[in-house]
Amino acid sequence: MEKIKLKKPDGRQLLLYSRRPIPGGLRAPSPGAEPVEADPHLRWHPLRGEWVAYASHRNNRTFLPPPEYNPLAPSRSEQFPTELPVGDYDIAVFDNRFPSMAAGASARPELPTPSRPANGVCEVVVFTQDAASSLGALPLSHFELLVDVWADRYEEIGGREEIQYVMPFENRGQEMGVTLNHPHGQIYAYPFIPPIPARELELQRGYMEDHGRGLLADMLAGELAGGARLVAREASAAAFVPVCARYPYEVWALPSRPVPSLAALERAERRDFARTLKTVLMKYDALWNRPFPYLMVFHQAPTDGKEYPWAHAHAEIYPALRSPGRLKYLAGTELGSGMFANDCLPEEKAAELQAVKVEIND
Amino acid sequence: MEKIKLKKPDGRQLLLYSRRPIPGGLRAPSPGAEPVEADPHLRWHPLRGEWVAYASHRNNRTFLPPPEYNPLAPSRSEQFPTELPVGDYDIAVFDNRFPSMAAGASARPELPTPSRPANGVCEVVVFTQDAASSLGALPLSHFELLVDVWADRYEEIGGREEIQYVMPFENRGQEMGVTLNHPHGQIYAYPFIPPIPARELELQRGYMEDHGRGLLADMLAGELAGGARLVAREASAAAFVPVCARYPYEVWALPSRPVPSLAALERAERRDFARTLKTVLMKYDALWNRPFPYLMVFHQAPTDGKEYPWAHAHAEIYPALRSPGRLKYLAGTELGSGMFANDCLPEEKAAELQAVKVEIND
Repeated sequence: MEKIKLKKPDGRQLLLYSRRPIPGGLRAPSPGAEPVEADPHLRWHPLRGEWVAYASHRNNRTFLPPPEYNPLAPSRSEQFPTELPVGDYDIAVFDNRFPSMAAGASARPELPTPSRPANGVCEVVVFTQDAASSLGALPLSHFELLVDVWADRYEEIGGREEIQYVMPFENRGQEMGVTLNHPHGQIYAYPFIPPIPARELELQRGYMEDHGRGLLADMLAGELAGGARLVAREASAAAFVPVCARYPYEVWALPSRPVPSLAALERAERRDFARTLKTVLMKYDALWNRPFPYLMVFHQAPTDGKEYPWAHAHAEIYPALRSPGRLKYLAGTELGSGMFANDCLPEEKAAELQAVKVEIND
Repeated sequence: MEKIKLKKPDGRQLLLYSRRPIPGGLRAPSPGAEPVEADPHLRWHPLRGEWVAYASHRNNRTFLPPPEYNPLAPSRSEQFPTELPVGDYDIAVFDNRFPSMAAGASARPELPTPSRPANGVCEVVVFTQDAASSLGALPLSHFELLVDVWADRYEEIGGREEIQYVMPFENRGQEMGVTLNHPHGQIYAYPFIPPIPARELELQRGYMEDHGRGLLADMLAGELAGGARLVAREASAAAFVPVCARYPYEVWALPSRPVPSLAALERAERRDFARTLKTVLMKYDALWNRPFPYLMVFHQAPTDGKEYPWAHAHAEIYPALRSPGRLKYLAGTELGSGMFANDCLPEEKAAELQAVKVEIND
């Protein structure tokens, strides 16, 4: 993995990653030269017991790009610079221009609820220079580099004193609210352990105390043995529709070895994990012969300096659709009570994904 | 409140409510004569520690209604009967034809995770016979009857041995996934206390132990005193944008007295609460002069036979839009980590709603 670090005119960081050496002399562009003043803060939600982030961005500069403008493409126009330079690299990572969390943020002591600076990190990960590609369509070695990038970001961002949790994710498709089709994901790094990972960690801890083994390792072993919900399988990684799927085509993908983070994976394991994810995404897109919208999120061990031997790094993928034209809406019972209602059986959806044949050329 | 109970040809229950005596001789129609076999079940999600409901409905009967068919309108066609009779009544409640939970359901002991029957209740609440109306547009006395209906359902359904939590809600607008414009809501009654109310109850309990007072009563007192986020105020009820709003136009509405459920409200309190809710909904619709999509959910004390002196009945309203044409999407950080990111300040959104003037004629 080759990596170089650049600074944008507005002060933000740009990282370029490649499978090959990256030529020197690259300069980092930015759509605006002046820093975006985010100053986000967190407020305590006393009825749910969680932090909520607030950021109201004030952008000083007039910026009216042409309709075909793509800020994630390499910058070819002097008049309307993008986020990325022209050059030979595979993956780029930069600080989000409109972050929900950012360094140097301040609290709001005048409020009637506790507040604190939202001093987290929000990065954008551009998967490829090719705006017409997609994550699932990347060559395996390119996808493997992305696993390296996620691992690198986990270690580098997670190494910061104030960061307790690093979460890479991809929102894919306009059904997920994505406005840029260029293949990209994001990394949110929190100055606390957010509620969903905290809950998952607590349950993994309890399971290990009760059984002496890991919850996800045991679930995976059961799925490998039974096979009814298995979607992809490599020597050291696999993917399945969980027996408790909340979304019709939900899939979990994970390394067989209960590593705390992607950074702990060996070379061959990274390749297997990349191949497993790629298989799932290719099956999704082939299922209805259309780009499949989803949220893919990675849960790893916190980076708060404590030990989490029960944390098993994994990806959870929540597709937005129930059928080619029908969304799975989150409404009354999901958002109001927390009980998800799924009108599809996981076993039936797994069978559909099993029936889709895909081929990966190394 | 007048109330009569009828039975549909397929066995489901129909309740009619009115401000006036209901004439006799009404018969309950149904789109189909044969029972819908739902047999829903719950599976345990071991990584999140919650139940997920599964229901795959098999409908035996061919049913191809004309495009203008509205199953929530009074039934005027012999060929395509609806859910409701023609007659003089204001509000109707019936068992959902495609329930996520239903009596007589069975478990799935063959699965590798605990399962149990989804023996809850799913009811549909038709707010008015007028398909072109809306909840906010109902006359105050009609809205007040609806509060009576919600209270009646809390007591009757909550009185069943297996039901531990009764949650009325309204999904409003196609942005929330609603396919029928006819004004209606739903009631989900669970054979367990679902995760979100459970969490809210736990935090209310802790607050009362620490402070000797109720969390919501204290929040309300602060909002009434400060006024910056107040949206509606009556003698015994009020509504405000919470300081920790997760959605841009989120509003909470509640009776001032910390009652466990709407059923505990006196007559004048019900009227004040109805007027408060109506004010909020009218402001929403007037804000951009368009029907405002939202989820409105009522959180009350569980009906598991225990005492919940810290439970303060309230409504939480989550609007789907950030601006007239832009949705608030739930994506990576909300669904993957549980931390909501809001790019609007609650104080600014409250000021917008405060500026909308509405008038309610009794």
